[in-house]
Amino acid sequence: MHQSALIECIPNFSEGRRSDVIAQIVAAARTASVHVLDVSSDVDHNRTVVTIAGAPEAVMDAAFAMCAAAAERIDLDVHQGVHPRIGATDVIPFVPLRGITLEACAELARRLGRRIADELGLPVYLYEAAALRSERRSLAAIRRGGYEALKAVIESDPARAPDYGAPKLGKAGAVAVGARMPLIAFNAYLNTDDVETARAVAEAIRESGGGLKHVKALGLLVDGRAQVSMNLTDYRQTGLFTVMQSVTREAARYGAAVERTELVGLIPQEALINYAIDALGLPAHARRLILEGRLGETTGDYRPILFDEQ
Amino acid sequence: MHQSALIECIPNFSEGRRSDVIAQIVAAARTASVHVLDVSSDVDHNRTVVTIAGAPEAVMDAAFAMCAAAAERIDLDVHQGVHPRIGATDVIPFVPLRGITLEACAELARRLGRRIADELGLPVYLYEAAALRSERRSLAAIRRGGYEALKAVIESDPARAPDYGAPKLGKAGAVAVGARMPLIAFNAYLNTDDVETARAVAEAIRESGGGLKHVKALGLLVDGRAQVSMNLTDYRQTGLFTVMQSVTREAARYGAAVERTELVGLIPQEALINYAIDALGLPAHARRLILEGRLGETTGDYRPILFDEQ
Repeated sequence: MHQSALIECIPNFSEGRRSDVIAQIVAAARTASVHVLDVSSDVDHNRTVVTIAGAPEAVMDAAFAMCAAAAERIDLDVHQGVHPRIGATDVIPFVPLRGITLEACAELARRLGRRIADELGLPVYLYEAAALRSERRSLAAIRRGGYEALKAVIESDPARAPDYGAPKLGKAGAVAVGARMPLIAFNAYLNTDDVETARAVAEAIRESGGGLKHVKALGLLVDGRAQVSMNLTDYRQTGLFTVMQSVTREAARYGAAVERTELVGLIPQEALINYAIDALGLPAHARRLILEGRLGETTGDYRPILFDEQ
Repeated sequence: MHQSALIECIPNFSEGRRSDVIAQIVAAARTASVHVLDVSSDVDHNRTVVTIAGAPEAVMDAAFAMCAAAAERIDLDVHQGVHPRIGATDVIPFVPLRGITLEACAELARRLGRRIADELGLPVYLYEAAALRSERRSLAAIRRGGYEALKAVIESDPARAPDYGAPKLGKAGAVAVGARMPLIAFNAYLNTDDVETARAVAEAIRESGGGLKHVKALGLLVDGRAQVSMNLTDYRQTGLFTVMQSVTREAARYGAAVERTELVGLIPQEALINYAIDALGLPAHARRLILEGRLGETTGDYRPILFDEQ
């Protein structure tokens, strides 16, 4: 059975308070063939994350329309919020779900970037799998110092010049467009209010501290609890079970334990199924014993397992 | 979007050695609209479990055709195997998957039972949700003593008379037809070869020993390891996480631990996702954050979560 290509796109906008503006941006994405899966606004961060999915071309058109709507309505010169950001539409990542490769998503990101630069006149930076310069694979490098710092140097520093568009920053700022694999944002709350414990655990488990590959982590104090806030950037390589084992072991060094966890945004169901198989000590071929998967193979009527093309 | 009704049927046949006979029985189920999901033959038990799925009427027709094929080819007077059985087609359970209730599956089981009695001349017993007598809800009560014991009493003991068909047992034996919710057959291997530990754990955790509701358990010695062999008969009420916690706790009393686990047959993916959510300490609403589920709701193109109608 032919499976049509499907991608996810998770644009982030620098507006989390004015509900009319958020609604207008989201409305720009609503077309017959694009599905709005989630809209999460954070008042403190003054930021909104929208998740859309659909056929590649339709999703790209929707992302462009949202970006145009945001550029008209958001002024970075007055925007306040602690989250690092460089533009009204801050980042636009494309994620392959089915029937399309990461590289094809990167090409789509580059086409969208070109269009945003040409038609909206915004400076565009390409990141992660879409990056044209290796030092821009990291979004953090592109966003360093945020809108304010970028504004000060974009015209004078060739190293900060955009990939597409003129090196000039208006009130709508710049846009980072990229492609990446699905990411899991996952937080573990410890049974302590000692933020230093969370920081020590985060430092021990994250890749940048010599810990687990494909794991970013920070120690925070949230709701009076030490929280290890994590991004799993390749859950097929480093999954939830491995991460939880490490968090549990490192926390135990400080006499702490994981009390509960939470997800921020959506999670591919494969990541939960992988966790169950690993934690139960089931053999890898147990994946082949999932009723819905078996139905999907034999009937073509079910497609429960995404990410088939990587 | 309309979701057509879908059921699963898992007939068990008293033949696990003659591959030509097994192939002929399975071939009887293969029609355009019925999907053969799994065929598992056990040489020691001399028994084959077939899993089929499809629309209710088509699955019922396929089950009838398989039952007819088995009755022609299997002779209980020569069949040997340790598993309790009363017929060539020993049991035929129907399981609701989508768009149909358990009660509708019970009605389907009764119609099939009537047809097997009328057209194949076999005694039929209705069990679990399809039972007409409360004491026959339990399959164990119907199969007590197996084919040999039933043959001795079926004509003389009114308590053992079939629900449908004449009280007379030929070489194809009798058939138990029923309806039930999905069942998970799940084994935990302990890090000991002491079968008494497995027996003690099984006794402590199973419902009949005052343990967990909807859990059947036996202690066995398999591949040199103590194995707790379990059936979870309502995983929505008592799930894998609760069961694993109990097995782990009871095993620890004897200084033992769970080394690995295994599934026998298929598992609904919801059971694995429930385990992950429980074991990770995620909030219940994390189920709403599964990407495929969100896609299914918004696009109608995905139906990853079955069992929607209970």
